[in-house]
Amino acid sequence: MKNYITHHPWKIIEEGYHAEHNRISESIFSLGNGKFGQRGNFEEYFSGETLQGNYLGGVYYPDKTRVGWWKNGYPEYFAKVLNAPDWNGIRIKINGEELDPHRLKLTDFVRELNMQDGYFKKTYIAEFTDGKQVKIESKRMLSIVNDELGAIKYSITPLNFSSSVEVLLPIDGNIMNEDANYDEYFWDEIEKSASARAPYLIVETRKTHFRACYAMHYTLEVDGKPQSLTQFDTIEQEKYIAHKTHIELEEGKTSTIYKYAAIVTSRYHENNELKEAASEVLADAKHKGFCKILDDQKAAWADKWNHGDIAVEGDTAAQQGIRYNIFQLNQTYTGKDERLNIGPKGFTGEKYGGSTYWDTEAYLLPFYLSTSEPEVARNLLIYRFKHLQKAIENAEKLGFKDGAALYPMVTMNGEECHNEWEITFEEIHRNGAIAFAIYNYIRYTGDQSYLEEYGLEVLIGISRFWAQRVNFSEEKQKYVMLGVTGPNEYENNVHNNWYTLKMAQWTMQYTKESIEYVKSNIPEEWTRIATKSSFNETEELKKWTDICNNLYLPKDEKRNIFLQQDGFLDKDLRTVNEIPENQKPIHKHWSWDRILRSCYIKQADVLQGLYFLEDQFDTDTIKRNYDFYEPMTVHESSLSACIHSIIAAKLGDEKRSYEFYLSASRLDLDDYNSDSDEGLHITSMGGTWMTVTQGFGGMRIKENKLSFEPFMPEKWKSFAFKINFRGHLLNIKIDKKNVNIENKGNNSLEVLLFGKPHAIAANDSISVNMKH
Amino acid sequence: MKNYITHHPWKIIEEGYHAEHNRISESIFSLGNGKFGQRGNFEEYFSGETLQGNYLGGVYYPDKTRVGWWKNGYPEYFAKVLNAPDWNGIRIKINGEELDPHRLKLTDFVRELNMQDGYFKKTYIAEFTDGKQVKIESKRMLSIVNDELGAIKYSITPLNFSSSVEVLLPIDGNIMNEDANYDEYFWDEIEKSASARAPYLIVETRKTHFRACYAMHYTLEVDGKPQSLTQFDTIEQEKYIAHKTHIELEEGKTSTIYKYAAIVTSRYHENNELKEAASEVLADAKHKGFCKILDDQKAAWADKWNHGDIAVEGDTAAQQGIRYNIFQLNQTYTGKDERLNIGPKGFTGEKYGGSTYWDTEAYLLPFYLSTSEPEVARNLLIYRFKHLQKAIENAEKLGFKDGAALYPMVTMNGEECHNEWEITFEEIHRNGAIAFAIYNYIRYTGDQSYLEEYGLEVLIGISRFWAQRVNFSEEKQKYVMLGVTGPNEYENNVHNNWYTLKMAQWTMQYTKESIEYVKSNIPEEWTRIATKSSFNETEELKKWTDICNNLYLPKDEKRNIFLQQDGFLDKDLRTVNEIPENQKPIHKHWSWDRILRSCYIKQADVLQGLYFLEDQFDTDTIKRNYDFYEPMTVHESSLSACIHSIIAAKLGDEKRSYEFYLSASRLDLDDYNSDSDEGLHITSMGGTWMTVTQGFGGMRIKENKLSFEPFMPEKWKSFAFKINFRGHLLNIKIDKKNVNIENKGNNSLEVLLFGKPHAIAANDSISVNMKH
Repeated sequence: MKNYITHHPWKIIEEGYHAEHNRISESIFSLGNGKFGQRGNFEEYFSGETLQGNYLGGVYYPDKTRVGWWKNGYPEYFAKVLNAPDWNGIRIKINGEELDPHRLKLTDFVRELNMQDGYFKKTYIAEFTDGKQVKIESKRMLSIVNDELGAIKYSITPLNFSSSVEVLLPIDGNIMNEDANYDEYFWDEIEKSASARAPYLIVETRKTHFRACYAMHYTLEVDGKPQSLTQFDTIEQEKYIAHKTHIELEEGKTSTIYKYAAIVTSRYHENNELKEAASEVLADAKHKGFCKILDDQKAAWADKWNHGDIAVEGDTAAQQGIRYNIFQLNQTYTGKDERLNIGPKGFTGEKYGGSTYWDTEAYLLPFYLSTSEPEVARNLLIYRFKHLQKAIENAEKLGFKDGAALYPMVTMNGEECHNEWEITFEEIHRNGAIAFAIYNYIRYTGDQSYLEEYGLEVLIGISRFWAQRVNFSEEKQKYVMLGVTGPNEYENNVHNNWYTLKMAQWTMQYTKESIEYVKSNIPEEWTRIATKSSFNETEELKKWTDICNNLYLPKDEKRNIFLQQDGFLDKDLRTVNEIPENQKPIHKHWSWDRILRSCYIKQADVLQGLYFLEDQFDTDTIKRNYDFYEPMTVHESSLSACIHSIIAAKLGDEKRSYEFYLSASRLDLDDYNSDSDEGLHITSMGGTWMTVTQGFGGMRIKENKLSFEPFMPEKWKSFAFKINFRGHLLNIKIDKKNVNIENKGNNSLEVLLFGKPHAIAANDSISVNMKH
Repeated sequence: MKNYITHHPWKIIEEGYHAEHNRISESIFSLGNGKFGQRGNFEEYFSGETLQGNYLGGVYYPDKTRVGWWKNGYPEYFAKVLNAPDWNGIRIKINGEELDPHRLKLTDFVRELNMQDGYFKKTYIAEFTDGKQVKIESKRMLSIVNDELGAIKYSITPLNFSSSVEVLLPIDGNIMNEDANYDEYFWDEIEKSASARAPYLIVETRKTHFRACYAMHYTLEVDGKPQSLTQFDTIEQEKYIAHKTHIELEEGKTSTIYKYAAIVTSRYHENNELKEAASEVLADAKHKGFCKILDDQKAAWADKWNHGDIAVEGDTAAQQGIRYNIFQLNQTYTGKDERLNIGPKGFTGEKYGGSTYWDTEAYLLPFYLSTSEPEVARNLLIYRFKHLQKAIENAEKLGFKDGAALYPMVTMNGEECHNEWEITFEEIHRNGAIAFAIYNYIRYTGDQSYLEEYGLEVLIGISRFWAQRVNFSEEKQKYVMLGVTGPNEYENNVHNNWYTLKMAQWTMQYTKESIEYVKSNIPEEWTRIATKSSFNETEELKKWTDICNNLYLPKDEKRNIFLQQDGFLDKDLRTVNEIPENQKPIHKHWSWDRILRSCYIKQADVLQGLYFLEDQFDTDTIKRNYDFYEPMTVHESSLSACIHSIIAAKLGDEKRSYEFYLSASRLDLDDYNSDSDEGLHITSMGGTWMTVTQGFGGMRIKENKLSFEPFMPEKWKSFAFKINFRGHLLNIKIDKKNVNIENKGNNSLEVLLFGKPHAIAANDSISVNMKH
């Protein structure tokens, strides 16, 4: 754990240059606008430790998987969002010496992410070898208003000299992925011109043939006055263009370079229109200028905060942590394009390849459901609907048939493309989370039409998969499910994982109910869906009913708990307390053999099921299972803490709930797991949001109503969260004494508070004593 | 299955050129001499499908493993015997046109492996584009007398022309492995000279720095008379040397080129002595000449056949198949160097990297035990003794301690170096086979001294591993063993694999007995071993006893059989008959997911244990287990048939025993599994030998005596096998009527025949009626 970020309610601040943490800082200061993103790399030439990263949403490369011996059913490739051309560069030379922040002596160094307004700022004073001192200030943003535009304002002030300096402004496509499986370059050059009015570079990904066009425009101001830059050299190299010019610096006067980059891709434009599209973006930027672009940015971010802020009083670190999570979630996914999804690291690193995991459905959907317009969450779901055919093909590759759908564990385009057999291959439980997300969406939004439009076909495909994936055990006289990996990835190829079985059973039941609903209410739609799916109503429903009624769900009768999997009780059952501190995290210290055999649990498994299907279980049952499993859980997934925090809150263990929250809320800001250098834990950020709203706020949907059973973390004075519920913008504020709910909608709303109904009139609020 | 090899008792013959099978033929016609080997590649330039292969025993490259995400305990590298420089080349050009057997019109093509004498011969007539016809005959051998020498006699006879032809004689180090994980070259050039008296090339492997020196000498004969070759060009290129010369061919007269190559490596010589060593090899070859070298070769092979031949009357295909297996086993391992071992493909292909697997102990030791001097089998065992420290380190990497030893599943130097997690990682059962081999060796040879000299330390290390690898299950109140893969590699990470548990129990018991034996008989040796191993006699023996007495061995009480693993009965239990023919072999047609979940068994698992520990079980028990498991066994390992054949024979099912034998005996000659193109199944060949001797011959060691209970395969007239037992050279011949055992030793011997003792005087024989 590190502690070098200054606490502030709206800003992320690094004071002083921390060379040893630079890759972490680059992750932390990442920017994104839903369409593209980048790590907080220096504009300057930088000789220190760096992970350069620019990423384009939906632009990926199918890197050949690394596997000893490929087997039938393994993915052919591991898709990764690739490191894309770098358009940030502003390289300064004085007297032939590079302005290299790593090598030169720096003072007054500050990096700062302004979350309220959505930009990244950096200031420092550098001293050159010959004693020349220069003050640098840069501001950078990726516009969320025009989401094909990046803009930098870069100011230089010579403090003790006047001189001509060389400025190099490149767009550089000679980039690689650090984790390329076979050290290949992924980009080919298509076209470029450094001498065009708007210098540009067009590159194309190998194999997938996505094109990206980068064009740039720049202007100069001295002492606030525009200057014309008539003298410049154009440089063209392989996958590289640049302009080189000289500007005259006068002691004490500030020269400012504005660099605008248009980043347009073939995902949104025809190949032959890329150049023009880029020109339009630049024309718009030129017309507006940096100041106006930044103002627009601020306004757009203000709107986002207005819909989804969480405010904490009395704990700046917590406030900063929560806002940072919300900020990064909004940078990563905007819901404008249903072909995009959310990679575990968003646009902040290479790891996990930027692909879609079950994290989206399990840990991210709730945030977007509550803080965005319903279309945003709906688009996250439609992503899977559009992949239904691919999911059917995925299942066929494994030997399933008749429309059974197995969604991939890792995907870019609906095809399975994970990179490791020993964990991912058998994690078929993702199918359950994808089904549950449909239910979750409808439960929250009330948008039943999603079922007939999209959801039901997906549910049928998934239920068919479950029905084929179980087999009847003569020994047990029950249906069993062999060879799976549950959410606890410290197991592999287990039999009868309770969570997977339970979610399978739930899916089949919900699908049956959904068929019943659509059939009764919109019969013509049911006819269409049944025909399209070649649904054999009598046979399939009978089969599902039989399976649901005779499904083996492992249980320990003695302890009266659900059993994570068959044979779990054969393990040497110990608690996490017994692991010596210097052996944690076990995944870094223990062999895979030892981890697999141990009882230790990586993240919620049985408890994940109790979280999803909470309504089916009484509190005592949840408590017994929590008391048994939590002490064996090492929480070595960033997705573990949130579920445990929410369950602890439900069980009244406010202290533990808060402790779990702490370990997740500042995961990246404090580099809790020593891996933030690789990128941010975006999906965990959704979990933190869930912890505050569902854990501390006790927010649920009950009886088709919003319900709250909040508690107040001891260390805080108050906390408040904003949500959007069926057209009502609500602000729920909890302090030591009261819960206050403000309804900013135009209609009244009935909510449950500590189990009791309360009506809140339009544009009114209620206040209820915490002791109710 | 293919059928293009002509049946012959002593030769492997391909009549007519089968372009489509060329890679298979290259495997089949492989040569080896225990120290190096090569595939049956053409000497000529060859444009057809080929897998060029030359391999040097013990010279390997640690290729970086391919794994999605490396985990603690995974091997760092996958060692492979690398494709080594090619010294075979004799390239002929007439009128500038290459003699390319693939492109030219060929007639009278015959390839022939003479197993009796140990050489490879090839003859054909080629017609050039301009109608010129030339007859070619080549003979090639790798000397087993001077095992650093290769020799080729290459004859050209122009049938319808006289002309000058160009002859190129290269040594070519520009070779790659087809299965290089990252397409790298593995060799660097160190030194070369094409103009030296003996032109040479010295190369070195990357990373491992093994050096190999290749030197050549050649002579020419026309019409049987030596000719001097004074005019030649020397060619030197990167990792390549050659001589180019011209010879005058006269119509009808045969010109013969003799090419000798010395192949010496740094495994047997100092780096600075390689050149000299190679010169000496060539000097010896020059002195002897091809004819004498071949005579020596014949004599040496005659001796091998005299010790280990199996003769079959009445079935030429069977005779050819069996001799081929014996021939290849003797080509692969000679037992001269205890640092060498036997790769699954010997010197015939790249697959499985030429590393040592448990195959050696489980399927190969019996052959060498019975057909060679005891030192040969002893050296196979000492190989593991020498790796004990590495095995302890392997175990430590996985978290074991206090001298627990886990031998690697795949190794070159004692380090684990497998290439796939999902099968190999958890196959800890290999430890059991390595322990059993010690027992098996002593049982056969009576050489108890092996225990105190080498065996006991290994047994202690392995027993310690087992003792740590189990854990006490509170649930079962027994010791259990979680997370293993048994010999059936169509399972992964199962709990309580009966075979592994049983072998663990057996090892601990045998180790205890062995300690007792050494302690009582050679107490000073026990003191030495106990001190060296830091053995805590009281504690460790007590622990082992407790584990052996309270070990969980899964059983199905209803069927009264041992259970392959926990949960096996949950599977959808079906027989192999139910798999449609077009879905076999399942590993080519089914997904890994489906295979894992199915009941189908790749190779003997429970039955492997019943085979090893036969004495512990009554025939009814063996039969019940065989009847349950065999019908579910797909025999998709080349190591499956032999065990099943031997058990079927024991159970009196002579028909099935013979059927199993058939599927293995000509596995490569008939390309049974469509994979002989990748190399031969050397370890399966040991299994075939076991089938004939232990299956048909019913050979066992009982009461410290050789015992036979033979049956006569219906299709054969007779069969006979030669073995070496404790200084007695025996020939056991079985025909329809009698068993005849000839004792060529100088002492009398008592054997058991159908359970009854018979004394055989020195140089005498006995004959017993088959109906006894």
